[in-house]
Amino acid sequence: MTLDDSSLQKYGFIKRETLGSINIDPLQTGGLLTEAAKQALVEWGDGYSVCDFCGGVLDLIKKPPIHDFVHQALPEFLGCDEARVTNGARESKFAVMHSVGKPGDWIVLDGLAHYSSYVAAERAGLNIKAVPHAGSPEYYLDPEGYGRAIEEVIKESGKPPALALVTYPDGSYGNVPDAKKIASVCHEYDVPLLLNGAYCVGRMPVSAKEIGADFIVGSGHKSMAASGPVGVLGVSKEYAPVVFRKSAHNKVKEVELLGCTARGATVMTLMASFPEVVKRVRNWDQEVGNACWFSSRLEGMGFIQRGQRPHSHDLMFFEAPGFYEISEKVKNGRYFLYKELKSRNIHGIKSGLTKYFKLSTFGLGKEKLGIVADAFEDILKKYEDV
Amino acid sequence: MTLDDSSLQKYGFIKRETLGSINIDPLQTGGLLTEAAKQALVEWGDGYSVCDFCGGVLDLIKKPPIHDFVHQALPEFLGCDEARVTNGARESKFAVMHSVGKPGDWIVLDGLAHYSSYVAAERAGLNIKAVPHAGSPEYYLDPEGYGRAIEEVIKESGKPPALALVTYPDGSYGNVPDAKKIASVCHEYDVPLLLNGAYCVGRMPVSAKEIGADFIVGSGHKSMAASGPVGVLGVSKEYAPVVFRKSAHNKVKEVELLGCTARGATVMTLMASFPEVVKRVRNWDQEVGNACWFSSRLEGMGFIQRGQRPHSHDLMFFEAPGFYEISEKVKNGRYFLYKELKSRNIHGIKSGLTKYFKLSTFGLGKEKLGIVADAFEDILKKYEDV
Repeated sequence: MTLDDSSLQKYGFIKRETLGSINIDPLQTGGLLTEAAKQALVEWGDGYSVCDFCGGVLDLIKKPPIHDFVHQALPEFLGCDEARVTNGARESKFAVMHSVGKPGDWIVLDGLAHYSSYVAAERAGLNIKAVPHAGSPEYYLDPEGYGRAIEEVIKESGKPPALALVTYPDGSYGNVPDAKKIASVCHEYDVPLLLNGAYCVGRMPVSAKEIGADFIVGSGHKSMAASGPVGVLGVSKEYAPVVFRKSAHNKVKEVELLGCTARGATVMTLMASFPEVVKRVRNWDQEVGNACWFSSRLEGMGFIQRGQRPHSHDLMFFEAPGFYEISEKVKNGRYFLYKELKSRNIHGIKSGLTKYFKLSTFGLGKEKLGIVADAFEDILKKYEDV
Repeated sequence: MTLDDSSLQKYGFIKRETLGSINIDPLQTGGLLTEAAKQALVEWGDGYSVCDFCGGVLDLIKKPPIHDFVHQALPEFLGCDEARVTNGARESKFAVMHSVGKPGDWIVLDGLAHYSSYVAAERAGLNIKAVPHAGSPEYYLDPEGYGRAIEEVIKESGKPPALALVTYPDGSYGNVPDAKKIASVCHEYDVPLLLNGAYCVGRMPVSAKEIGADFIVGSGHKSMAASGPVGVLGVSKEYAPVVFRKSAHNKVKEVELLGCTARGATVMTLMASFPEVVKRVRNWDQEVGNACWFSSRLEGMGFIQRGQRPHSHDLMFFEAPGFYEISEKVKNGRYFLYKELKSRNIHGIKSGLTKYFKLSTFGLGKEKLGIVADAFEDILKKYEDV
């Protein structure tokens, strides 16, 4: 191809079709920018604007107050000793795995772990042992499973795994596991625990110290109302010198962060939203209430909520026999639901899904959730006689 | 600390003091957003907005046309077989180093390499052999030095280095080395070459194939008018299966990219600016002309431009005896220049520097460059009799 005017015209500014819709995709509900973040985005949008204020170490910038954010506010918020801003939750996980493990070592993780935990472990050359969950309908994760998995690793490799990971909550069913018990089981074997809080940090209260996790990972774009990619990483005093070790070639630069990470609009939107994020976390009980209310409305339509019951997170997984039956009868059936929702300005259930899908109620409030539930009812009714 | 209203009030929206100034910091001149990118930033700012349109693989998204951008436009632009969008140039470099090398292997790089090349190599566990430059005033990099460095590695370790890297141009003097010759020298030993084009891709014409580089790396925030962090990575057909290998755990996800990279405003601003970036690259001769004109004005003030002469890049390093003499005489001397420039709305020479500094003329045009040169003259004059 040639890069001429005709081939280039498709780039430039492109409209975002889903903007303004009610979005129930779990990936999106916690990442909507606050008004302060929208302003910060425009103000700090250029290249890596933050570097104008840098004396060589990103997290030591005093003005804007990145230093205070990274070294005071974030450790307090995450309940950890040391924190950093990274390029995302997966990048945080890889930094930890690559620091505490070496190729050929083992990691134990929950069977509901996000694919990026697997891929990060694979990139770090770690062997993976998954702790099985109990399967449908609850997908319960038994903390004692970590002990059994660690024993198996010891038996197979002669030593404990370098790391254990728990997804808190998982991204399929929104199950919040007993991380405190898991930490305690892992520590019996001196195995450090990483808490993957991509769907937790910025949504619900969490403290790595209270749980006993050695590492905590969060996602700015998923749950902290920031423009991505950006994440956070909290580490205990014990492991901070390992994960945040300095370069032999440049004494101020941290190896696992490749020197610097988020140094433009991403960190500035993370900081801009932070006061509101701190506040919304305090409102978590209301969010859980809304989720349960929404779930009960769907169950009234014959849908079945899989995963923990009663549920304690905004991310939920449903089986929807009513929608599935319709899809079996209508033309191009599996796409009917996506189209019906789209025509009602609702987005977030993947195109083609009808029988099983996940969604999130976070931040929508009862009014919008009511609109979604009404739409579901309306669609069921519309096809009643098909 | 407690996260109460008083401790949180310093976050939220923060003004960017340098906005609107004439910025000659080499980090900033190529990263200013185009109008299309500013619009894209606002439109796609939320979380990872792009994921609304994803079927599981970021670079296969058809609409917005990320697929065509990554698989058609970028390879053409970079002169390579396969390309990806990454979280930055350093992340691109690490992905390559971590793919083609294993801990204990060697890398050969130029003595003017950016610190992030060293840190990325260190993170990948590679031993580093630097090819020396000729030192002041030209800092010439002899392509044959790569042959000697490779020979040394073979002598010390029994095998050739896993990779060679050349910085094109370097970030201190803006020297554009003879990368074609370097590639040819490296290939005599079957050593693949990575071209670090963080200050090249998006500013000046470049083709990995014409040079013979196996890998090419660019920076969206540094030189492609994108909101950071975002980068590009081009790879030859030979190495694409190595660098872009798929996960054993998830057949569509690429291990070195941890599954996905830029999936929000960053990739959308990169794409939004792309048509203009393609066009500005064609204007490179004019940019070099402006740089040389600016350099000659400074030399008229007794400054000395270090590095290649005549210069062929907008990034330049100057020795400024006139400013240094003033700093020796005035109170708080080393900060006078920063303050004087600030009062004239000019930013980009690091606070405290007077004798030596680097700057960039990219994209400023003769009018603004004239204002900067006039300001320099004016400052010299102001302190003439001190």
